[in-house]
Amino acid sequence: MNEVVKIGVAGLGTVGAGTVKLLSEHRDMVTDRCGRQIVVTAVSARDRTRDRGFATDGLTWYEDARDISRDDNVDVVVELIGGSNGIAWDVCKIALENGKHVVTANKALMATRGAELARIAEANNVTIAYEAAVAGGIPAIKALREGLAGNAVSRVTGILNGTCNYILTTMREQGRDFADVLAEAQKLGYAEADPTFDVDGIDAAHKLAILASLAFGIEVDFDAVAVEGIRKVSALDIEYAEELGYRIKLLGIAKQTAEGIEQRVSPVMVDKSTAISKVEGVFNAVAIEGDYIGSLVLEGRGAGERPTASAVVADIIDIAAGRIAPVFGVPAKRLRKNVRASLEKHSGPYYLRLMVWDRPGVMAGVTAALAKHGVSVASMLQHGRAETDGGVVPVVFVTHETGEGAMTAALAEISAFESNSQPPVLIRIESFTA
Amino acid sequence: MNEVVKIGVAGLGTVGAGTVKLLSEHRDMVTDRCGRQIVVTAVSARDRTRDRGFATDGLTWYEDARDISRDDNVDVVVELIGGSNGIAWDVCKIALENGKHVVTANKALMATRGAELARIAEANNVTIAYEAAVAGGIPAIKALREGLAGNAVSRVTGILNGTCNYILTTMREQGRDFADVLAEAQKLGYAEADPTFDVDGIDAAHKLAILASLAFGIEVDFDAVAVEGIRKVSALDIEYAEELGYRIKLLGIAKQTAEGIEQRVSPVMVDKSTAISKVEGVFNAVAIEGDYIGSLVLEGRGAGERPTASAVVADIIDIAAGRIAPVFGVPAKRLRKNVRASLEKHSGPYYLRLMVWDRPGVMAGVTAALAKHGVSVASMLQHGRAETDGGVVPVVFVTHETGEGAMTAALAEISAFESNSQPPVLIRIESFTA
Repeated sequence: MNEVVKIGVAGLGTVGAGTVKLLSEHRDMVTDRCGRQIVVTAVSARDRTRDRGFATDGLTWYEDARDISRDDNVDVVVELIGGSNGIAWDVCKIALENGKHVVTANKALMATRGAELARIAEANNVTIAYEAAVAGGIPAIKALREGLAGNAVSRVTGILNGTCNYILTTMREQGRDFADVLAEAQKLGYAEADPTFDVDGIDAAHKLAILASLAFGIEVDFDAVAVEGIRKVSALDIEYAEELGYRIKLLGIAKQTAEGIEQRVSPVMVDKSTAISKVEGVFNAVAIEGDYIGSLVLEGRGAGERPTASAVVADIIDIAAGRIAPVFGVPAKRLRKNVRASLEKHSGPYYLRLMVWDRPGVMAGVTAALAKHGVSVASMLQHGRAETDGGVVPVVFVTHETGEGAMTAALAEISAFESNSQPPVLIRIESFTA
Repeated sequence: MNEVVKIGVAGLGTVGAGTVKLLSEHRDMVTDRCGRQIVVTAVSARDRTRDRGFATDGLTWYEDARDISRDDNVDVVVELIGGSNGIAWDVCKIALENGKHVVTANKALMATRGAELARIAEANNVTIAYEAAVAGGIPAIKALREGLAGNAVSRVTGILNGTCNYILTTMREQGRDFADVLAEAQKLGYAEADPTFDVDGIDAAHKLAILASLAFGIEVDFDAVAVEGIRKVSALDIEYAEELGYRIKLLGIAKQTAEGIEQRVSPVMVDKSTAISKVEGVFNAVAIEGDYIGSLVLEGRGAGERPTASAVVADIIDIAAGRIAPVFGVPAKRLRKNVRASLEKHSGPYYLRLMVWDRPGVMAGVTAALAKHGVSVASMLQHGRAETDGGVVPVVFVTHETGEGAMTAALAEISAFESNSQPPVLIRIESFTA
């Protein structure tokens, strides 16, 4: 590369526009920080006429974003198209094969084909950087890959989807139901018209798979992530959580266990006194536990034009300054194949809520079923009786540490009881020391 | 440097020993992460016979730590002696001048002579890295220098001294006084026998000066930091803070103002709902506000053998991998001289507590003095009357945003009133959006 680093931006949505604006607004500062001038030379976007808030004269416009990756006047390709296939993949692959570095915010792509891209990058002596793909502006990738490079990581936990965290926070603060808060979030623009990707946990799972690869030195393995979203979280369970000293969060958790790595995105109860439980609203957080650092929590904005542009530009500056780390922390050939921990082997406390007809013998049946499967009860909540005898009452159990196999078996047995007025709710409880 | 990176460790206290242990325990992982083998070849410590928990055969021992910096068999010198003068300075300077990189945990040295060291490093084409000097294991230096490199930072705030945070947390939780909790902390080993450096804010000020240099691209200017410790924080003010919705924290705050940079370490009231207010006990935190990222909070362990060793080794790995950033984010010659904001020009809300004889006319006098200097009162607290008429009652005012000059003038006038049974207490209130 020359004194000037030439950037091609594929995709001029909010993040692309934010990146171009940042580079122009902070031109001198950026030059000071990487020792070179960074100039956008080429762009690609569907609509050429839209006003994006910056001057486009002098830029080469491409109809086909792939052509940016073939442009000799581009050193670094910034891929902001999105999606794990099609154009985004082509843009990254062609750029790397042409000896260009790539910076991307594409979590779906990195989560599903990241290891492949790392190999292509290394074979061509360039890198693909993706700080913006996880937790927006929070430098979580850099923290794991470099800042904690001396640690064997035991667990990485993330609040990785701002939409879900906003919905759960609002449900708790206002005692409202999921559907209600979601509809409002959609109206306010905090949630997409089709919220599936967010509320069903897929977006968080993409990010978790990337973090897990970095944390444990494994090839990214998105299919290993067990995913459950927040649609089934009820205002009632949030209320009980509060009473028991917990918060319900949609957490991505990847942890090293004796038999492999467990990766899961699901609603989880966490102690109210922990740092991660206090991350509210649209904020994201990543908590990392390592054998030397103890625990580290990073909290900030996980999305949006400006925070994401901040991450994209940090990657560009590192590349321009020649600060290149292996894509997933270690050389691609040193990444291990993921050994998946069987989810059945998960072990921890559980929250179990039943809605039962308030009749004699019901509790005896439930507690007998728990005991039969070796599930030990730490506490139980039942407030008063139903208004009319024989009405429905919620009954809540918190268990001691229990194997998921035993818990599932007990739950199956309890679910079959005629005393249930609706299916039981089971939520994992996760412990944090800080 | 060769395939093997040779490390000389000057100072084998807890952090030095932790560093050697980490490098040996995680040898293969460290090699994977930087592409080279890292080997400790030389050490220096006063007592050669002490058992430090690792094998010392094969290591070159030096009586005089300076000799490590002259050893041809050392590529990187890790300076863990401490102190801003004497041996530590010599070790760093000689190493840099001999073309060796330096890694240090020495905040006093970096805060007082950091700019000089950066110039020496650059002149010799090596670097001096100091992640371990600020907030222990938290990668705050890396976050500011690289992760947020695309941001104009407006404010950086830190809970930078675990001893103070532990004392303030315990005072609040247990309603106890400073002296009492300090004595206990000393007994438990959380505070030094001579606690001056910690409780008077000097340690935090060293760290803040370093963060400010990175955040604002200025030559580190420790003398510019206004320092006030926690000795005068009373259980009563902590209680009032709680009632008003605040927590009292010893914060290091460096911010860009219209007329220059304000740097201050002092007890501050912060809203209870903010992330920084929730950092409790021995934990440290650094909050950074930038124009693109919004806000970022990093929280973790700010001291101790293992977290600090984690930071030292992260620096070693970066150096071994060739990932070198300018010492304070930009080349030393591009660092600006600090322009100090006059502390008088500080502007913000204030907490003012008086202990007054409960007599007619007292409140009229105080409120008239505030009004005279243009200090506008946002709220006032006075709970009941003294048990006996004419007794002493605490009266608390929270002001609207006020210039420090006006506040100081009003305070001087009020302090002279005969109605005071003891001197008034004034505490700044600092606002955070996240």
